[in-house]
Formats: sequence, structure tokens, C-alpha cells
Amino acid sequence: MDLPYTRIKGGVCAAREFLGSAISCGIKNPKSDRLDLSLIYSKIGCLSAGMFTQNRVKAAPVRVSQSHLRAESLRAIITNSGNANACTGPTGMQDAKNMAKETSKLLGLRQREVGVCSTGVIGLPMPMIRIEPKYEGLVAGLGPKNGNDVARSIITSDTHEKEFAISFELHGKRVRIGGCAKGAGMINPNMATMLCFITTDANIGKRGLKEAIENSVENTFNRITIDGDTSTNDSVIVLANGAAENKTIRRGTKECRDFSHALEFVMNKLAKSIVRDGERVTKFVTLEVKSARNASDAKKVAQAVANSSLVKSSWNGEDPNWGRIIHAVGYSGASIREEFVDIYYESKAACKGGLQAKTNPEVLRNIVSKPAFKITIDLGIGDANHRIYSSDLSPEYVDFNRSEYAYWKQAKKDGLV
Amino acid sequence: MDLPYTRIKGGVCAAREFLGSAISCGIKNPKSDRLDLSLIYSKIGCLSAGMFTQNRVKAAPVRVSQSHLRAESLRAIITNSGNANACTGPTGMQDAKNMAKETSKLLGLRQREVGVCSTGVIGLPMPMIRIEPKYEGLVAGLGPKNGNDVARSIITSDTHEKEFAISFELHGKRVRIGGCAKGAGMINPNMATMLCFITTDANIGKRGLKEAIENSVENTFNRITIDGDTSTNDSVIVLANGAAENKTIRRGTKECRDFSHALEFVMNKLAKSIVRDGERVTKFVTLEVKSARNASDAKKVAQAVANSSLVKSSWNGEDPNWGRIIHAVGYSGASIREEFVDIYYESKAACKGGLQAKTNPEVLRNIVSKPAFKITIDLGIGDANHRIYSSDLSPEYVDFNRSEYAYWKQAKKDGLV
Repeated sequence: MDLPYTRIKGGVCAAREFLGSAISCGIKNPKSDRLDLSLIYSKIGCLSAGMFTQNRVKAAPVRVSQSHLRAESLRAIITNSGNANACTGPTGMQDAKNMAKETSKLLGLRQREVGVCSTGVIGLPMPMIRIEPKYEGLVAGLGPKNGNDVARSIITSDTHEKEFAISFELHGKRVRIGGCAKGAGMINPNMATMLCFITTDANIGKRGLKEAIENSVENTFNRITIDGDTSTNDSVIVLANGAAENKTIRRGTKECRDFSHALEFVMNKLAKSIVRDGERVTKFVTLEVKSARNASDAKKVAQAVANSSLVKSSWNGEDPNWGRIIHAVGYSGASIREEFVDIYYESKAACKGGLQAKTNPEVLRNIVSKPAFKITIDLGIGDANHRIYSSDLSPEYVDFNRSEYAYWKQAKKDGLV
Repeated sequence: MDLPYTRIKGGVCAAREFLGSAISCGIKNPKSDRLDLSLIYSKIGCLSAGMFTQNRVKAAPVRVSQSHLRAESLRAIITNSGNANACTGPTGMQDAKNMAKETSKLLGLRQREVGVCSTGVIGLPMPMIRIEPKYEGLVAGLGPKNGNDVARSIITSDTHEKEFAISFELHGKRVRIGGCAKGAGMINPNMATMLCFITTDANIGKRGLKEAIENSVENTFNRITIDGDTSTNDSVIVLANGAAENKTIRRGTKECRDFSHALEFVMNKLAKSIVRDGERVTKFVTLEVKSARNASDAKKVAQAVANSSLVKSSWNGEDPNWGRIIHAVGYSGASIREEFVDIYYESKAACKGGLQAKTNPEVLRNIVSKPAFKITIDLGIGDANHRIYSSDLSPEYVDFNRSEYAYWKQAKKDGLV
């Protein structure tokens, strides 16, 4: 899959005719100048598609972006980090709409052409007083080399920005796809607590773009988990402006499949980088479930194992504890036969037919002592498979997530609550 | 509910004609003399009923006890801790059967009158070489005052034994119910990783006893969670020997309901003591979900909130973070309307109609700083309720559960793997 793609510099501004801008307004921390407001903009008209959290509690910007995407194609996305604008009621909706409105005025677009995203603490009113004075500077700062600033501005508890871009041949033209993402906590299959913005200069039809994003998200962002929590703000948005001047890609063609694979390739890089940078994560674990009775069972097993506190704690302890893995297989709800279950750490058997295998435990221990390893669970009763990228659970994760109280105290000081 | 019951001394030997015994055979730790093998025995014939884990991976002793209970009534239960005898294949089944067989011979019972329970590490062969020499001493040690020894012998990562007993009037006779339990980790609604043995001298019919245990478990052990992991060994067994000489309690009568309430009262005390003594737990949280559309939704919401790593981390941090609670409500799968959700810490509103309430955050913070508190989630769209007893997630829990490797090393030294 790597072969036809050339990795290129940059992220969300790597495709032609896309500009970015990021600025600090003090939402993350009034006392520091961390970037926390950003803008992505296509100089020329473009098509868009998006996928959003399946949490029934949806942040205001998610509702606004969904409605704008239904009505029209987006050409710009404004994003703040530090406050999720979730559980903020009609005021939060108005705040999200105003962010789109003010940006659209300055860019000469219709309000519905601007998407809005937010990430951060849930339940606090938006500090609009910090955002409003910054719109003009944000738009004035737009440039083709600011993709990295955008990537840095959207991160919260991530330790570093995540961006990736490629180019490849399509219909004899060189097409670019690039993007950035943030994650770190509240990460679960079914759209993690994450934002991902992808731009491409491919010329692609609306239906082809929609299909490509749906398939790609299913195989990438829906297959990662850090803590099993699904957030209120997850958003993946793709903008395609056609600047590569390839013949329009139509749904169902070979070119559409090629484009979809390339999109999935970019998303997969970003998804895996989210897990690697999970909150206080020390292990990157590829979990492969094989030979399940059906696809739904394969997924249930992968999710139960990947989200078990006890399994994840043992990964943190570098303990090849297959007993805990099979116990999670057992309560996953999938149809299984204990006596057919094999469990491998890389290529070494830890469990054969539901029993301790002959492999020396020290060999298994050496595998789980590595920063990244693969565990295969072969259920031996069918032909359905499922893969998830997961991580360990560390004492430091819990410690890190003990309190967001500082945000509430600051909000009180600001007169917001 | 407290009123008609008198708390009495003791636990699993508090009811008349029940004897207990416990001994150390070095399964927990060959170098220490911690009690790890126990026996409960009724001097006279009795009826029994049991409920077991819903994990599809069932430990050998669970299978053996289930089969003995179907065939006949139990009169004795032998239990070891330190090894779960789970994922041990035909050898494990033979080991569990032998434990029943050897005990039954010494007690002059049929093999099927002896239940078997195990708790401890999954996947390691049973160290029968340590258990076999101990049967005679175990039976010889039976006495009416050894209930506390039994309670201590079944605990693993628990910090203390859990026992409780009451007496009450029924049909003009004084009836006793007492028991002991162990828990601590792998605790989830749907039978926690726990063992619970209850004895009663009530004279009750088989069908009445079955109904009473089913109702009581549903309202007690199925409503606690520590880490959301469901174990392979969960067992609740009740023995009733009729020594109180009350008129036989028949299913469907007022007396049967009274007995059932008393049994539930005892189980509730034991269930709550399991949560309070959860692995490295610092908070006991009563989670009350109200006004859900239906019972299934109420349960989904309670379980999602009670098992969210982020919610539990915030409880550990004494942070009244209702934003994380409503986010778990949103992904629970239940039908909810964000704008109708109220969240209370004790009687103080943190969230009203999906929004930050007016209560001073410091007031809420004082509540979650207590070792035990209640959170009520009022969904405002129906009349179904569900209650769960839960706990926080501490950095120390993860640290405690990082490795069971010492057990595997010992097993290797013993030639078991």
C-alpha cells in the first residue's frame, strides 16, 4: 500500500490552494500564549464531507457543522481548543454560529460555507470575550505554510502535533492529500475524542468523497481505543478543491477506489499517531482478532479486550497475562468456544486451545516489554477478523485525568459560571 | 428494611448446624501461611441454590458446582484461593472433581453434595500437590466458630474479610442468615469477580430458595462495579438446612417474600462491602439513575457512567466533573434528551437541563471530597430507575494490577507450566 504514495512536507496545507492560520487567545490558559484558535481555508471553491461523534450529547459546533455540511459545501473551518462548547445550550449554539458567521464575513463566504469545531472541557460556557477580538488577526494570518501551526493549535493533552501528507498519480495528474489530527483522551472505536481535518486538491464528485470518508474512517479512526470513552466533539472533515485538475473522480470507479485507499492511508497514519500519543501511554498494541463466527463477534472481542482495565494494566506492567485476555474474550458477548482459543504475542503462542502454551514465559515477557507489539486472538470458529490499535493504561493516565477543576475555577473568575 | 432484623455475631457459621474450617496450603504464597483452603458444611441435610458468572469462559469449579447443583443439593463447599482453576482444560476439571470427591469421602457424603469454588490467577494449572495433603486436616478442623477463618481464607486482593449475619422472626421461629464474600477486582454488574457463601437455618422449599437468590443477586451483586471486568469464577451459593424448624416456606407466600428481603439485606451488606474494599479504592459512590425511558435504558446509563475511566478518575481527583458524567450518559446507548438531564451531587444540582447549574463549584467539590457520596442522574423522560454502587479508579489500582508474573514464575518453578 505504501508504494504508490510519496510522502510530502506539511499537513493540512500541503494540497494546493489551501491556507491555514493559528493564533493564541488564552482559552487553554490565559497566562500562556499557546495557540488555540485556528482557521483552514480553500482559496477556490470546494466540496466537503464530514463524519461526527455518535455520542447523543453532541457539542454545539458538531451540530452547526453537520447542518452546514447538509446545506452546502464547506470552504473553511474555524476551530478552538481548551473549551468543547458542549452542554452549553442555546448560548453555546449561538456562540458556534457566531464563530462561523464572523469568519465568513471576513472571508467573503456564506455562513454555511464555514465549519466550526471545538475541543476541550465539557460544560463550560465559551469564553467568547477572548475569541471575538481575534477573528481579524486570524484571517489576516492565513498562509500556505501555516499547516503546522494549525496542527499545534488543535491539540489539548496531546504531547505533540500530528500531521501527515502524501502525493500520488491519478488520471495522469499529481494529487495531494494532507491533514492534521488531535486525540489523546476520550478515545474509543466509533470516532475517538478527536478532530481530524484533511484537505486534498483532488477533483472528486460529492458522492465519491462521501463514500471515501465513510470507508476510511471505519477502517482507521473507528479502530483505535485509548480509554473507551466516546467524546461529544469528534469530527473528521475532508475538503477537496480540485486544484490538481484531474478528471473528476466518480463513485464506483477504479480511480475512486484508488483515492479512497490513499485517503485511508493518510487517516491510518494519523489514527495510529493518536494512539501512540495517548494520555500517558507507554505501549502501542495492535490487536488482531481472527476466525470469529462473524464480523460483529470479531469486533466485540477486539473491543472487550482493548478496553479491559485489567488487560491494559497488565500491558503497562509488561506482563504477558493471557489469562486476563481470555477472560475479556469470555465476557465480550461474542459466541466463542474456550477450547478453540489461541492467543499469540507476535508469533509466539501464549495460549493454545484455551490452555497455557509451551512457550517459555520469559520469551513472551520480552515481547510485551517492547514499546509496540502485536497480539493475535484466534477464535478458531469462523472466518471473520477485526483489528484494533490500542494502548496500555498507566497509573499516570489516572493521575493526569483526576481533575479539570482548574478550568472551572478560571471560568468562575471569568464570570462564566 | 433494617427494623425486623437483628444483627448477630459471625458469618457463614452463624446459622445453626453449620460448621466451617480453613487452612493454609501455600497456594497464595508458598512462603507464607495465609489461609487459602476452606470448607463449609451442614451437619444435617439441606437444600441449596446458586448463581454463577455469565462469562463464557467458566472456571472448572464453576462447571462442577453447576452440575452438582442441578443433580442434587449441596451440603458442603470446598474453596481455594490463589488459583482460579480457569482455562485449565480437562486436567482442571479433574482437579475440581477430585476436590469434591476427596472431601465427600471424608464427610460421608455423595460427591455431588459438595460444591467447589476457586479464585485467583487464570490460566495456571492447580497446585494439587499442595492441596491433596490437606483434606484430612481441613475436615478435622470443622467447627461452629470458624466462620471468620473461612471468610479470611477466600479473600485474595481484598484487604479484609467480609462477613455479616442477621436473625429475624418467621412463622414464630427465629431464623438466621449469615454469609461471607470476597471481591476486590474484576468487579462488574452481572456477577462480580466474587465468591459469596450464605447459610441459613430457615426451612424453605427449593423453588422458594431459587427465586429468593435470583431476586437478591439481581438487586445486590449485579449492581456493583469496580473495574467493569466480569470474571470467570463468580459464584453465589446459598445453603438452607431448616434447623430453625419453621413451617416450610413456599414460593409465592408472604413468608417467602419476607425471607427473600432478609436474604437481599444480607447480600446487600456484603455487596457494598466489596465495593468499599475495591482494589485501591478511595471513594464509595452510589449512582442513582432516575426517570429513564425504560429499565434497560436506566441500566445502560448507570453502567456507562460507573465504568467510564474518565468519570472514575475524576472521582479519584475529588473533581465534581459533571461534564464527563453527561458525556458517558450520551454514549451509553440509552435514549436520552440532553436538554432534560439533571445531575445532582447529594442534593446539590451540578447540571440542570443539560447545563451548568448555579450551585457554587466549591459546594460540589466538598461533596466529592467525602469518602462516600451519592450522584443522581435524572433523565427526565420516563419513570424507570436503576441504582449502582461504584468506586473511583486510582493510579494505585493500575499499579496494583500491572503484573501477576510472580505467579507464573512460581508455577514454572513448581513444574506446572
